[in-house]
Amino acid sequence: MEAIRWEHDSLYLLDQTCLPAVERWLRYTDYREVAQAIKTMVVRGAPAIGIAAAYATVLAARENCCKADFPAAMSRAKEVLAASRPTAVNLFWALNRMERCWQTFGLARLEAEALAIHSEDIQMNEAMGKAGAELVPNGARILTHCNAGALATGGYGTALGVIRTAHAQGKVSMVYADETRPLLQGARLTAYELVRDDIPVTLICDNMAGYLMAQGQVDLVIAGCDRMAANGDFANKIGTYALAVLAKHHGIPFYTALPSSTIDLSIPDGSHIPVEQRSGEEVSCFAGVQTGPVGVRTWNPAFDVTPHELLTAAITERGILRPPFDQKLACQFV
Amino acid sequence: MEAIRWEHDSLYLLDQTCLPAVERWLRYTDYREVAQAIKTMVVRGAPAIGIAAAYATVLAARENCCKADFPAAMSRAKEVLAASRPTAVNLFWALNRMERCWQTFGLARLEAEALAIHSEDIQMNEAMGKAGAELVPNGARILTHCNAGALATGGYGTALGVIRTAHAQGKVSMVYADETRPLLQGARLTAYELVRDDIPVTLICDNMAGYLMAQGQVDLVIAGCDRMAANGDFANKIGTYALAVLAKHHGIPFYTALPSSTIDLSIPDGSHIPVEQRSGEEVSCFAGVQTGPVGVRTWNPAFDVTPHELLTAAITERGILRPPFDQKLACQFV
Repeated sequence: MEAIRWEHDSLYLLDQTCLPAVERWLRYTDYREVAQAIKTMVVRGAPAIGIAAAYATVLAARENCCKADFPAAMSRAKEVLAASRPTAVNLFWALNRMERCWQTFGLARLEAEALAIHSEDIQMNEAMGKAGAELVPNGARILTHCNAGALATGGYGTALGVIRTAHAQGKVSMVYADETRPLLQGARLTAYELVRDDIPVTLICDNMAGYLMAQGQVDLVIAGCDRMAANGDFANKIGTYALAVLAKHHGIPFYTALPSSTIDLSIPDGSHIPVEQRSGEEVSCFAGVQTGPVGVRTWNPAFDVTPHELLTAAITERGILRPPFDQKLACQFV
Repeated sequence: MEAIRWEHDSLYLLDQTCLPAVERWLRYTDYREVAQAIKTMVVRGAPAIGIAAAYATVLAARENCCKADFPAAMSRAKEVLAASRPTAVNLFWALNRMERCWQTFGLARLEAEALAIHSEDIQMNEAMGKAGAELVPNGARILTHCNAGALATGGYGTALGVIRTAHAQGKVSMVYADETRPLLQGARLTAYELVRDDIPVTLICDNMAGYLMAQGQVDLVIAGCDRMAANGDFANKIGTYALAVLAKHHGIPFYTALPSSTIDLSIPDGSHIPVEQRSGEEVSCFAGVQTGPVGVRTWNPAFDVTPHELLTAAITERGILRPPFDQKLACQFV
């Protein structure tokens, strides 16, 4: 399963706002439209938006390559793309890497760099899958949140990559997928990916996870990550923090799976991660159906920040990191 | 605001499956249809289904009063009503009280008994409101779950009764209402009640409550109750348990408000409370729209059980109960 393709000098994105009901691919030739696709979550997931932004940089370069003010035009394109969403650091990481590429080597290598970012992401996911599967006991019942799967990455997935590898090893007896309000990525994307791969999955509402743990039905929790600070604090989809607290209360290991492109050593801790606030209509409506009273006040942070104290281990392409995270992150991911 | 009326020998229920978009009253003259209305949640909330079952008993008595096998027919009607939903004990409490009434006094008092159950419930709510408001500090930001309001009771509400009284005393700066998946009683009913009463309310998704607490935005949590066992363990809408764990982690007081009709001293602890499992379609659909892949496995407990250790105090019409609950429940509610 994949959600991003680069073909005939165009970017194709599987429209994730319409899944699972409709599988629709959209074609992009203008970086501004890619920025809009990131903003509206046609493409979402920290690694995936980094990859989309890398390809969008190629589109911007093609548009501006014959202009006298090429560097200024590329800076403007970078700004437009960087303004699409604030929390996942992979977006800025990819934009910076693409900028260094054309500044250092000119334009000839730029498409290859975007393709490399894409294929490296898949390789990192597979490496995370192998490393993380060692944490999964036989017969495991695994709870996951949102979608950190093939659809959120270049392919294979971070948290779902671990689950895929562990399942291939015969270790997974059940995956519980939080539906993940407000945009239901767990129901629409994670359950869809797992059903397609014949991995046993049970869909639950977010508010059922605590009771499921209390029933002794969860052996471990694996979530994705949108940005990890130097001390191991990390942002991920809203609801991740509550799961981490609940896991701790029940003595259940809590893991996040992330490629190095998600690590932001420039910030000391999670308080420096900007948390995106999205439209209140995501909370008070669904699929055009009003659920709350018209005009009701809402609060809609798209992410929350989980302090490193609640994290059992981080699964990266370079292996498993256990506390204290700050020293290991600083050593391994400079 | 009220959701239950007894007029011209008929029961009228405000159809809570259609709120807030449509305010539709349905008329009932057959107890079997009332049982169906309880099952499909036209009427819901532990006290409200007790009241509806009391009026349904009057309807059953009228249907059967001239029959030779009146007692057997009434037993069958009681069975049909008792089978509508398993968790809230108020249903069984009301059915038993109505049965004792006709067995002891014949039919003449039966309508008056149903009206008494209804009006006593409102009085208990007002008494809970007064008692509970003393627990609310000035400027309080209160989190509530599901709907324990006028719509869930004879009127005024249990948890929302406390909030209404505290608001009238000028103490409430914000109520945060969990939307309460899968059936969205928080969005559709609680937010609706509070907006109508001009009480400041902010609607959130269930998975945001933990992060809201971590932001220091919650001073106390008040939930309703569907059944409390002799030791203080209690069942309430799914998600209540997770909130109790989260409140404990953040050092936030966690209260439940309940009338004595919700206390079940016949069971020693929460493990004896039957937890209703409802249709998986409630989870795999949202507001009538399919969200998960077709045919996905789901888990849909309508309630969870919160152990008494996580409860700061119980708010009843007889005052505030603090731990140890078992002794106080046994003394005051024999």
